[in-house]
Amino acid sequence: MAKKLKTGVIGLGRIGQIHLSNLVHHMPHAEVIIASDVSPESHAFALNLGVKEVTTDAYDVINHPDVEAVIVCSPTPFHVPYTVAAARQKKHIFCEKPLDVTLEAIHEAEKAVTENNVKLMLGFNRRFDANFNNVRTLVEANKIGDPHILRITSRDPAPPPVEYLKISGGIFLDMSIHDFDMARFIVGSEVTEVFVKGDALIHPEIKEFGDIDTAVIVLTFENGAIGVIDNSRKAVYGYDQRLEIFGSKGMAKAENNTADTLIHFDDNGGHSSLPLHFFLERYETAYRVCLKSFIDCVLNDKPSPVDAHDGLMATAIGIAAMKSLTEGRSVKISEVLQYAEV
Amino acid sequence: MAKKLKTGVIGLGRIGQIHLSNLVHHMPHAEVIIASDVSPESHAFALNLGVKEVTTDAYDVINHPDVEAVIVCSPTPFHVPYTVAAARQKKHIFCEKPLDVTLEAIHEAEKAVTENNVKLMLGFNRRFDANFNNVRTLVEANKIGDPHILRITSRDPAPPPVEYLKISGGIFLDMSIHDFDMARFIVGSEVTEVFVKGDALIHPEIKEFGDIDTAVIVLTFENGAIGVIDNSRKAVYGYDQRLEIFGSKGMAKAENNTADTLIHFDDNGGHSSLPLHFFLERYETAYRVCLKSFIDCVLNDKPSPVDAHDGLMATAIGIAAMKSLTEGRSVKISEVLQYAEV
Amino acid sequence: MAKKLKTGVIGLGRIGQIHLSNLVHHMPHAEVIIASDVSPESHAFALNLGVKEVTTDAYDVINHPDVEAVIVCSPTPFHVPYTVAAARQKKHIFCEKPLDVTLEAIHEAEKAVTENNVKLMLGFNRRFDANFNNVRTLVEANKIGDPHILRITSRDPAPPPVEYLKISGGIFLDMSIHDFDMARFIVGSEVTEVFVKGDALIHPEIKEFGDIDTAVIVLTFENGAIGVIDNSRKAVYGYDQRLEIFGSKGMAKAENNTADTLIHFDDNGGHSSLPLHFFLERYETAYRVCLKSFIDCVLNDKPSPVDAHDGLMATAIGIAAMKSLTEGRSVKISEVLQYAEV
Amino acid sequence: MAKKLKTGVIGLGRIGQIHLSNLVHHMPHAEVIIASDVSPESHAFALNLGVKEVTTDAYDVINHPDVEAVIVCSPTPFHVPYTVAAARQKKHIFCEKPLDVTLEAIHEAEKAVTENNVKLMLGFNRRFDANFNNVRTLVEANKIGDPHILRITSRDPAPPPVEYLKISGGIFLDMSIHDFDMARFIVGSEVTEVFVKGDALIHPEIKEFGDIDTAVIVLTFENGAIGVIDNSRKAVYGYDQRLEIFGSKGMAKAENNTADTLIHFDDNGGHSSLPLHFFLERYETAYRVCLKSFIDCVLNDKPSPVDAHDGLMATAIGIAAMKSLTEGRSVKISEVLQYAEV
Repeated sequence: MAKKLKTGVIGLGRIGQIHLSNLVHHMPHAEVIIASDVSPESHAFALNLGVKEVTTDAYDVINHPDVEAVIVCSPTPFHVPYTVAAARQKKHIFCEKPLDVTLEAIHEAEKAVTENNVKLMLGFNRRFDANFNNVRTLVEANKIGDPHILRITSRDPAPPPVEYLKISGGIFLDMSIHDFDMARFIVGSEVTEVFVKGDALIHPEIKEFGDIDTAVIVLTFENGAIGVIDNSRKAVYGYDQRLEIFGSKGMAKAENNTADTLIHFDDNGGHSSLPLHFFLERYETAYRVCLKSFIDCVLNDKPSPVDAHDGLMATAIGIAAMKSLTEGRSVKISEVLQYAEV
Repeated sequence: MAKKLKTGVIGLGRIGQIHLSNLVHHMPHAEVIIASDVSPESHAFALNLGVKEVTTDAYDVINHPDVEAVIVCSPTPFHVPYTVAAARQKKHIFCEKPLDVTLEAIHEAEKAVTENNVKLMLGFNRRFDANFNNVRTLVEANKIGDPHILRITSRDPAPPPVEYLKISGGIFLDMSIHDFDMARFIVGSEVTEVFVKGDALIHPEIKEFGDIDTAVIVLTFENGAIGVIDNSRKAVYGYDQRLEIFGSKGMAKAENNTADTLIHFDDNGGHSSLPLHFFLERYETAYRVCLKSFIDCVLNDKPSPVDAHDGLMATAIGIAAMKSLTEGRSVKISEVLQYAEV
Repeated sequence: MAKKLKTGVIGLGRIGQIHLSNLVHHMPHAEVIIASDVSPESHAFALNLGVKEVTTDAYDVINHPDVEAVIVCSPTPFHVPYTVAAARQKKHIFCEKPLDVTLEAIHEAEKAVTENNVKLMLGFNRRFDANFNNVRTLVEANKIGDPHILRITSRDPAPPPVEYLKISGGIFLDMSIHDFDMARFIVGSEVTEVFVKGDALIHPEIKEFGDIDTAVIVLTFENGAIGVIDNSRKAVYGYDQRLEIFGSKGMAKAENNTADTLIHFDDNGGHSSLPLHFFLERYETAYRVCLKSFIDCVLNDKPSPVDAHDGLMATAIGIAAMKSLTEGRSVKISEVLQYAEV
Repeated sequence: MAKKLKTGVIGLGRIGQIHLSNLVHHMPHAEVIIASDVSPESHAFALNLGVKEVTTDAYDVINHPDVEAVIVCSPTPFHVPYTVAAARQKKHIFCEKPLDVTLEAIHEAEKAVTENNVKLMLGFNRRFDANFNNVRTLVEANKIGDPHILRITSRDPAPPPVEYLKISGGIFLDMSIHDFDMARFIVGSEVTEVFVKGDALIHPEIKEFGDIDTAVIVLTFENGAIGVIDNSRKAVYGYDQRLEIFGSKGMAKAENNTADTLIHFDDNGGHSSLPLHFFLERYETAYRVCLKSFIDCVLNDKPSPVDAHDGLMATAIGIAAMKSLTEGRSVKISEVLQYAEV
């Protein structure tokens, strides 16, 4: 693996900067040829990291003759267009989640990737978190037996501004989508049905535009397992990311990460530290491992660890969840996939 | 409180023996006048504990002139008849759960208790477990803020024989009923709606008679909180009894109890002990505290800590849960309570 | 084991009441024939528990023709005289710790017990605590390998009054003696040398009469292991009783017990419960198991689990510790045992 | 702080590579001008990281006109000569531990640093570990009250080869020296006396050259606190780095770090992960924070967080510990410092 993968980065927002910085500092098998962002002020970040070429036009990255793989960190509506364009240029693609909010667009991307025989990997970084990845390893090693019950707790420390929520696509496609992917990853089976009970308990005003901030989501899996996700936009004690899988041979659970292992006892009791504040802290390493996996899969021609089908299913579960909330009933995934060849 | 409450015990099966033994050894403010069991072989247990009078007829206990309170530990179908008869004799009643599997019978018992102005307390012993009771105390002290999400994990170490399951009344009234009561207790608000997803993953044959052994139950509360219970009849690692309440000001969780606090490290990792095996071990103290509360409420004329209404609601949720499972939809509690004055 | 052991209890102070109450309520294979206390006001406690005969004279217990075993809970100076007298009457003896503060007296007791062929068991109750007993089981099962390092933390929640400390015999014979016994029990080897560093950091005035309230004690064992005990008379967060054994194959540690398993998270962090307050709460079950072992060893003619030699060694280590503190040097146990046939 | 500190690195062994890599990737306020190593094969490492100039002669680094600060990662015997030479060139110095194994040499370095008015910081990286640093913060904030007892557990996963041990300077100056520095750091008071009990329980053959592999070390502090360190060269379950400080107002303890937070339950019990394997994993972040502190102290003219006096005291405690082991007695630090002006 002496070769270095020549990459180009599209989008230098928060997540684009994380990926670019990781590429420069932590990926000995990658180099960055060019980076783009519509706003020229972002270019300094790339130049300071030693990137030679910057541009405001994403297609300069996609069409650059030296670029072998593009890292797509643009806003969601551009994910599929850039993916399709890059595929046609025979470039491999790492794309941030979600691939798209409609199943049709995802199919289009999937088609382009298949026809042009390139790799597409989606940035579901949590799969690469040591806690969750090691739970999956136990399931694969049959240490849990047949999975019966999956529990995911996923709560943010604070909600985004209401203005953002209005354009977020709703809690399921904006926030829970990570948990939908995690559920499929841990159990290793497709979700067939979704039931949601939810409410706007933190910001009642967001109900006006059909959104909620607190949800309990029941998932049924093809292999018989039943899953439950609980989501909240506001856990005052910090970013709460835990899960548990229970099966015929045992149970495994992953607890939160904290900044230290201290316990302090005084006459009021024992006191321990808060969970790491938010996703940048909690998933710092996971982002790195995730991107490394992409570079490894391209350079060594391995299957993509998170492909278009994974993106399709996560979005389909999100659409079904919204339908369940709106219609107050359990919704089969096949209802939303009816026109799609899964 | 120098007075001793004169009690009589009806039923000397497993749970009757626990209560009788606790009365004799641990209740300085109670004495046992008489005990009954249809099977004379059980009488030796009471006699060995120093009970002076035994009988095969429960009405000998109910009608005994010295008895002030009866402890009803008979099979479920006799709970209401004995409760009604005891109430008419102006005796206070401690009755094992469930009070009955029909709401009509529970109303009948409630009516007799009210008309005769006696105390009725139901044996929902888990409310008196230190872990759960202390969580409730935090909720009452507003340390959690407004409750948003409740999670209960309740898994048995091993299923009863299939023969027992056939007559058990189904998982909801036999096993989950404790969790329904716990949910109302912890959140401090009524359940208004139930949705169930369940399956027979351990013993598929029990589906034939409409039962399941694995369930995820979503509860909606009047105050807006959403709850989720996960049940399994078989956790190979032992009796798993945990819960968590999450709200606007924080979160509290109660973990399992273990026989010791050991951690043993070898080159494979850290190893800790199993949860206490089953309900007799886990709730040993809770049974005692529960019965003590009854004696205290009678002797000091306090309200019953767990009254007929609590029994009614737990059973109603159980009936609604079965309806949800059968009909594959969310069921409002008001549907099953329509004929009842709650 | 249908037979019941006929016992007599000497001394109805705090610990005497615990043992008497346990005998009556929890020892189906024992009965109490008679109880004594110099102060007649204590007699009511025994009478209320159904003991038929009470006396102010300990010798009425020792000489009672029906008594087969005496439970000695008198002040320490009477331990040996009563033990010797009981042995001569061919009565088995359960005696509270310490057997005595001088090695000569302990030898005298040991001789009487041997010559009269009766059982003597000392009340080192902590050996019967589930945490510590299960650590010992791991050591015996060779899960730890050869023991290298032992760590015992033993801290009281609050010091006794200075007036008591003056007559206590000093921290080593009053408090650390339990830890000396625990050290020998866990490691399974004799202590050969002691070094102490200590100070009066809580009540400096107790230095006047040669006592301390904070100590670090280094023990050397015959098998090569090295142990360290840390003692404090005042841990504001409660009774702190932990230990850890480290060896060639691994490590095992026992943590404190708490009243519940709660963790409460708010925006300040996680909060857990205090350790159980003091020895009555922490060792409630251990007292019971300890006494049961005595009854079992007598009725079934098993060796005493904690015999005169154990008492001798614990006291010898205590004497050596005091010598180390006074002389500021490491002291060999053989120095204080020189006149004794160990 | 827009300025970048111009540094030169001396020594490209394991620790030199860590520091160089951290300087290049993680120190936006530093740049590396030149690096040296006697072995030219090591130079590729620096060149690959973009360092422009490499040399086999450390004095090329020290005398380089652009270098403002040197990072000394050479073998221990060169620490003081390079420190003195650099100080005379008015260069600031970051030097690996121990500064030297003799107090005279340390004094010489201290004198040069003071006379030339440059900063000297020693690489006691563990002070910058989040766990230990946060314990110190609690002590400083008076959350523990007056410190009474300090406990440090410091055990390596596996001993170095016996050949290395022969030239290591002994366990105290090679391994425990970190713990001596930690003890002074946490308690915030000078050590006045040392007592050691130790043995070669893992490799008995190392006793031939006066070394041991298992030790319990008692420290007495000026402020009255008593400390105890337990060291082992071989903990089969991994790198064991914990500490606990106990005082008049409470207690704080830092547990080990693990690669994940998993707990896996099967019918044998609960299973958790091993501690992080060794110092490279456990202190990865601490190395970075440590070096950042040096750059910050130079650029912003702050006092050195770990200065020559700290190096002197750690070495003095190590010398006293060896004296205690050899002479079998408690040794005052003043005995080994007698010729030194502390």
